[in-house]
Amino acid sequence: MTRKIFVLNGPNLNLLGTREPEIYGSKTLESISSECRALGVKKGLDLEFRQSNHEGDLVDWIQEAIGVADGIVINAGAYTHTSVAIHDALRSFDGYKIELHISNPHLREPFRHVSYVSSAVDSIVAGLGVDAYELLVDILADALDGQARKN
Amino acid sequence: MTRKIFVLNGPNLNLLGTREPEIYGSKTLESISSECRALGVKKGLDLEFRQSNHEGDLVDWIQEAIGVADGIVINAGAYTHTSVAIHDALRSFDGYKIELHISNPHLREPFRHVSYVSSAVDSIVAGLGVDAYELLVDILADALDGQARKN
Amino acid sequence: MTRKIFVLNGPNLNLLGTREPEIYGSKTLESISSECRALGVKKGLDLEFRQSNHEGDLVDWIQEAIGVADGIVINAGAYTHTSVAIHDALRSFDGYKIELHISNPHLREPFRHVSYVSSAVDSIVAGLGVDAYELLVDILADALDGQARKN
Amino acid sequence: MTRKIFVLNGPNLNLLGTREPEIYGSKTLESISSECRALGVKKGLDLEFRQSNHEGDLVDWIQEAIGVADGIVINAGAYTHTSVAIHDALRSFDGYKIELHISNPHLREPFRHVSYVSSAVDSIVAGLGVDAYELLVDILADALDGQARKN
Amino acid sequence: MTRKIFVLNGPNLNLLGTREPEIYGSKTLESISSECRALGVKKGLDLEFRQSNHEGDLVDWIQEAIGVADGIVINAGAYTHTSVAIHDALRSFDGYKIELHISNPHLREPFRHVSYVSSAVDSIVAGLGVDAYELLVDILADALDGQARKN
Amino acid sequence: MTRKIFVLNGPNLNLLGTREPEIYGSKTLESISSECRALGVKKGLDLEFRQSNHEGDLVDWIQEAIGVADGIVINAGAYTHTSVAIHDALRSFDGYKIELHISNPHLREPFRHVSYVSSAVDSIVAGLGVDAYELLVDILADALDGQARKN
Amino acid sequence: MTRKIFVLNGPNLNLLGTREPEIYGSKTLESISSECRALGVKKGLDLEFRQSNHEGDLVDWIQEAIGVADGIVINAGAYTHTSVAIHDALRSFDGYKIELHISNPHLREPFRHVSYVSSAVDSIVAGLGVDAYELLVDILADALDGQARKN
Amino acid sequence: MTRKIFVLNGPNLNLLGTREPEIYGSKTLESISSECRALGVKKGLDLEFRQSNHEGDLVDWIQEAIGVADGIVINAGAYTHTSVAIHDALRSFDGYKIELHISNPHLREPFRHVSYVSSAVDSIVAGLGVDAYELLVDILADALDGQARKN
Amino acid sequence: MTRKIFVLNGPNLNLLGTREPEIYGSKTLESISSECRALGVKKGLDLEFRQSNHEGDLVDWIQEAIGVADGIVINAGAYTHTSVAIHDALRSFDGYKIELHISNPHLREPFRHVSYVSSAVDSIVAGLGVDAYELLVDILADALDGQARKN
Amino acid sequence: MTRKIFVLNGPNLNLLGTREPEIYGSKTLESISSECRALGVKKGLDLEFRQSNHEGDLVDWIQEAIGVADGIVINAGAYTHTSVAIHDALRSFDGYKIELHISNPHLREPFRHVSYVSSAVDSIVAGLGVDAYELLVDILADALDGQARKN
Amino acid sequence: MTRKIFVLNGPNLNLLGTREPEIYGSKTLESISSECRALGVKKGLDLEFRQSNHEGDLVDWIQEAIGVADGIVINAGAYTHTSVAIHDALRSFDGYKIELHISNPHLREPFRHVSYVSSAVDSIVAGLGVDAYELLVDILADALDGQARKN
Amino acid sequence: MTRKIFVLNGPNLNLLGTREPEIYGSKTLESISSECRALGVKKGLDLEFRQSNHEGDLVDWIQEAIGVADGIVINAGAYTHTSVAIHDALRSFDGYKIELHISNPHLREPFRHVSYVSSAVDSIVAGLGVDAYELLVDILADALDGQARKN
Repeated sequence: MTRKIFVLNGPNLNLLGTREPEIYGSKTLESISSECRALGVKKGLDLEFRQSNHEGDLVDWIQEAIGVADGIVINAGAYTHTSVAIHDALRSFDGYKIELHISNPHLREPFRHVSYVSSAVDSIVAGLGVDAYELLVDILADALDGQARKN
Repeated sequence: MTRKIFVLNGPNLNLLGTREPEIYGSKTLESISSECRALGVKKGLDLEFRQSNHEGDLVDWIQEAIGVADGIVINAGAYTHTSVAIHDALRSFDGYKIELHISNPHLREPFRHVSYVSSAVDSIVAGLGVDAYELLVDILADALDGQARKN
Repeated sequence: MTRKIFVLNGPNLNLLGTREPEIYGSKTLESISSECRALGVKKGLDLEFRQSNHEGDLVDWIQEAIGVADGIVINAGAYTHTSVAIHDALRSFDGYKIELHISNPHLREPFRHVSYVSSAVDSIVAGLGVDAYELLVDILADALDGQARKN
Repeated sequence: MTRKIFVLNGPNLNLLGTREPEIYGSKTLESISSECRALGVKKGLDLEFRQSNHEGDLVDWIQEAIGVADGIVINAGAYTHTSVAIHDALRSFDGYKIELHISNPHLREPFRHVSYVSSAVDSIVAGLGVDAYELLVDILADALDGQARKN
Repeated sequence: MTRKIFVLNGPNLNLLGTREPEIYGSKTLESISSECRALGVKKGLDLEFRQSNHEGDLVDWIQEAIGVADGIVINAGAYTHTSVAIHDALRSFDGYKIELHISNPHLREPFRHVSYVSSAVDSIVAGLGVDAYELLVDILADALDGQARKN
Repeated sequence: MTRKIFVLNGPNLNLLGTREPEIYGSKTLESISSECRALGVKKGLDLEFRQSNHEGDLVDWIQEAIGVADGIVINAGAYTHTSVAIHDALRSFDGYKIELHISNPHLREPFRHVSYVSSAVDSIVAGLGVDAYELLVDILADALDGQARKN
Repeated sequence: MTRKIFVLNGPNLNLLGTREPEIYGSKTLESISSECRALGVKKGLDLEFRQSNHEGDLVDWIQEAIGVADGIVINAGAYTHTSVAIHDALRSFDGYKIELHISNPHLREPFRHVSYVSSAVDSIVAGLGVDAYELLVDILADALDGQARKN
Repeated sequence: MTRKIFVLNGPNLNLLGTREPEIYGSKTLESISSECRALGVKKGLDLEFRQSNHEGDLVDWIQEAIGVADGIVINAGAYTHTSVAIHDALRSFDGYKIELHISNPHLREPFRHVSYVSSAVDSIVAGLGVDAYELLVDILADALDGQARKN
Repeated sequence: MTRKIFVLNGPNLNLLGTREPEIYGSKTLESISSECRALGVKKGLDLEFRQSNHEGDLVDWIQEAIGVADGIVINAGAYTHTSVAIHDALRSFDGYKIELHISNPHLREPFRHVSYVSSAVDSIVAGLGVDAYELLVDILADALDGQARKN
Repeated sequence: MTRKIFVLNGPNLNLLGTREPEIYGSKTLESISSECRALGVKKGLDLEFRQSNHEGDLVDWIQEAIGVADGIVINAGAYTHTSVAIHDALRSFDGYKIELHISNPHLREPFRHVSYVSSAVDSIVAGLGVDAYELLVDILADALDGQARKN
Repeated sequence: MTRKIFVLNGPNLNLLGTREPEIYGSKTLESISSECRALGVKKGLDLEFRQSNHEGDLVDWIQEAIGVADGIVINAGAYTHTSVAIHDALRSFDGYKIELHISNPHLREPFRHVSYVSSAVDSIVAGLGVDAYELLVDILADALDGQARKN
Repeated sequence: MTRKIFVLNGPNLNLLGTREPEIYGSKTLESISSECRALGVKKGLDLEFRQSNHEGDLVDWIQEAIGVADGIVINAGAYTHTSVAIHDALRSFDGYKIELHISNPHLREPFRHVSYVSSAVDSIVAGLGVDAYELLVDILADALDGQARKN
């Protein structure tokens, strides 16, 4: 059985690969998406990559995942620190949820140390770079399996 | 070449597997250690598992890792939220550093939302359960490779 | 004379009736809208029900109400606690304004105890459940009459 | 069956109708009480209106309501913002509880934005003026019916 | 014309003269009251001295002063720092209002540096000792005259 | 010589034994009072039990204890967290003073973690249940003896 | 060479000229835009005026400016005080950036004293009224020249 | 014996009588000084009036008073809220010290509710208008007499 | 059946009896231990007294108590205010737990008013002096009996 | 008619041109003054440039401007963040007031994000470099004209 | 080569030796200055002692030191806790800078625990009494030598 | 007579000389210890150098110093900011106590601006580099002599 996973990306993540490549690397979100989806196929995961600068789009997509997806990976970008709406939407989704940050937000400004996403997800992965998207395929496969084992 | 990794565990983590198994599972730290070290061998990682309830031991061990280890995985337990000493020791270690939490601390009391470890490490992994120890073998192998690629 | 009333609903309120029915009941926003509009007709109120997960839509609709509507009922959902934009739009609307919450936000997390909407409306109704939508038809009729009496 | 409702009013509400009539209207608490009790009879509610400037009286009366009344409407006035004692008493009362404010406290000083009553009641109604007392007859009738339906 | 002045004293001020005489002197509130009333007669002021340990009594008495008294002197004691109810009652009284403290509260604990009375009165006199009661007869006579001159 | 002890109980403690018996037990304050007074007689303590929902009553009674009683046990209930007036009265009483809480307030809401009573008493006993009233007979006898030994 | 400048306006600024003209004047954003563009032509600036009530639109447009525009003038309205997403987008834009406020936000509510935009721009202009839009043509011409001189 | 009193006035008090006469009256500091000195002569007080906009002048003058003056009246104006230097100088002066404010600072902005002067003086008089300068002649005469009586 | 009780003492408590005897008395921890153990024997309690200046020792000993002891008395000294590790260990121990302080920490510096121990124990006893150790034998015997009665 | 403008500069601005020229440029305050006064002549503005390291001088000069000048430009330097005295003086000046900062204070330490000047002026200009002095000639001419147009 | 050192003393330090000699000793600032200058001569340091109660004087003098002095010793007294202007001036001085306090400010009021000087100097010496002035001759000689060795 | 001095060093100070030599120099703690002890011999001081990463060791050693040593120099490293236990131990030691920091903590993160050590020592020396250890031999000799002179 193929599991459906939404990989939702928030504001400014569409600039990946074109801005500050010494920090974020030169991979674009599109190439990350391609590589991950290919890896997902091998692991039995159907990955749906999306990006928007609109908070409301992220809320819409999380709601769309209800009843459709087994898990959500969310890199909410700047909305991580300000969005109660995304927090609420995530809490309405019963599947497995992972919060992803490319860099480690605790090395940046104090207003990035607060996350409304963290208290609405199962797991948090931060600071592993853009490779984290590839790594999460393994993690999710295992996590969903673990969840399955528990049930 | 085999890489040396220290996996340091803080206070009360020696109780793993014996307390609240419905949350933390029934694996002990010893069995986790065994499985991870076995997996590490396959990945070219020599994992050194240690646990102590003493803040000073964790500082001692991080210092011991300097010049010896390529990376540190640290689950500082309760010292995560109070120890500037561990923060300072970690900043003296130049290798790859990952902060690990079995559960998601943002679902617990407010005093667990603050981490002195987060601002001294490269990456953070939380809420993936005891399986996270096994997962980090993959993560570390990839991360150290990524670091290698950058250099 | 029929009075026009906008009933604006914020993020995640489109999930009403399908999530946690033991708390929020099993009525959908659509059925609430139908019942209220029917009741409104009897009371001389033309109710315009809308919902969006986008903060900007709520701002757009409040502006649309200027010069068109006699009153606004707003359940801003999560934006209640974070949106200065909605606060400003409401202050530009001169008609009668009521803030509505289905549950009592003071029984939930501390970040839900702060409201940017409360200081921009005339009245606040919270914790009366989904029946509050039906009740507000009476309240608004009376409130607008009271306002009329004052002028 | 007639339901018993306590309508408890805190400090300075006995001045209603005599102070700042342009804001609070010219109705006294006595005339409000009369009109509401009359309306209550039609709705099957026996309303008990009381007012005191003493925090302890309000606590006494809430306790008196235990086992006697089906609901409490409380306009705790200034004690809203300072009284843990009233909070505790309300939590000991199992019936339906509504917090009432004539004006919208969020348009006033910051110390009026905090309420110890809000986290001990089912519902909150604010800013509807002195007419709110009349409106709550409808609200309570419906609310108690709603509660009945749930049980 | 004789002016009526209420001199209201809050909790623990009935202990004056019997506790810590080295700080507060050995005059009782009764003897202060006698001396002040005698002095008041000469200045055309009819002084009404009262003391209570009950917050509600102070609110009752301030309300009683409405329409009856030209001024209020209030030493609210500990309620100075906690009572919004007294603040509200004072704001309903249109006459001249002075806050009085025997000692200087800024030389004591931080929780005594906050006053809900100060923002509801015209004037504040603190740290002048028990003689302040006698001094206020002069002050009030002048202040009421000044107010008269302004009108 | 028989020592006089005031045991003063604040708001809502008159509900003991009738509310949430699984937490507070089924003993009423009256039966606790009877048992303690009987035990007190054996220990040479004359215990005076009182309860009120009025802050002012507690202040009145503490003042009444001056010169009459050797010690005060005070369970100020909700006033623990808000009453400077009780704090001041207790500081005027020179005898031995114990603060008593049936449950442990640190396991409840944050506003119960602050106590104005704690900084005005000699000792604090919390979380020992209703049996604490019986235990304090021993404690007080010993404490007063200890105080005697010091003098 | 003509320089491209984006002039981005946030929520509720489309109401300019129609609301509170005694404060904001009677010019609409359209007439301001026309006048500024005309003046810009003389100064060698091609001004692109846009307005949206949607936070995401502002982020989209700032990204659109990358590589296209030499400067951004942003009046983010209410999003000034809440949007980390706009902050991040601005930091990705390397050209000259000015924050503009028609009125002086420090004369308004405290929540308007905080700006996430200020720490992402080069310059701030506030309180110069709607004429500020015309003035910025001069300022930008000079500023871009100054920047040119530095390089 | 004539007692020497320094009456020190801080920044902007030289504008008295020329700015906002409806609030502060039309008396200048010079005319207040003349009237007070005349009154002082009758009461055996030699009043030295000074004003400066410089914090350092106020510190200099307080030091000058040491060993020369029996008392200081200080209206430190804006330095009330910011000057630790004046606080320290006042604490070095052993005579009687009164803090004077023409208006009641608690009716103004929050930053005027904090006073570094209050914790360095014996007494505080606020909100009595410009007449307070005349009144303090009486107060000081009495206060110094009271101090004398104590010694 | 003899019950096992651990009496754990934190940093600097080994100095008891030798420092500030006018406050803490002249009994050493050893003599207190001897007297308590003797009394414990009579009450059926086997008391294990330990002291360490090391936070980790206290964590080790609490863990050692799991499965071995029926109760823990802990005077964590300075670690009371800083140790999350001790908090966590205590929460892993299911037996009866009492927090003990010789003096009343609320009469000392503000940083001693916060306790990480209080929210992890059943009961708190403070300010009863060194005699508290003897008193707790009674308390524990009763408390464990009470617990037994509940089960 | 020539308008008089005071351009007041606070502490350390006399170092302009000699310190950190890469940030602040190499123009001295004297050369800026010369250029601006020359430009002012053309625009009908008589600019009075002053600088002092003394808070009191700035207060003196603002008072001197009353009745003499049409506008004040103030770069209060470090006193921006600490001076209530300058705030008060500015509020006594009825002409047009602009706050000027050469660099953007929001890019510096948090204590520079607070301004007592901002809430006492009409307009704020920051981060435009030393050229801002020249630009303000245009701005002031326009602003004073705008003000004239309003009157 | 003789090195020039400015020793700058802030408000109230001119009272040294005459106030509270049991704490500060009986040496005046003049005698300290004489002794230090004599010692300085031996160490190759030309010490310039100054004192003022004016914040602006201290700023003036620090600026005067630029290009003239090799080091500054500053005891800013009360301005330590409030002066951003002194902070800024010190940061413009490139030589060696030491902050000096005669007593230990952490044993005094909380507002003395904050220092704007500390973050603008190289070194801090506090609580060594008036002898610190003599000691700093040694320290400075060594420190300047150390600095020399580094360059 | 030789005086005994404990020089206690906290966590990570054993890394001195091997980490960031450009900041901390290349001297190890051992070589510093040797040089200081040699210098101490000349000054009549017997210096006992110790280092540990364990908070409890520092507490143990401070206690060991009681009755044995005349003074303590403590560089508590990271425990400076978190250890109440070390604070308490230091307060139990009656000899002369100096807090030492190699770098100036006010130039680092905010959590290093708080010190529990500062309020338990006589003197503080910070930012003088590793040479501070040598300098303190002079300081201590003088300080102890000064103390001797006072007694």
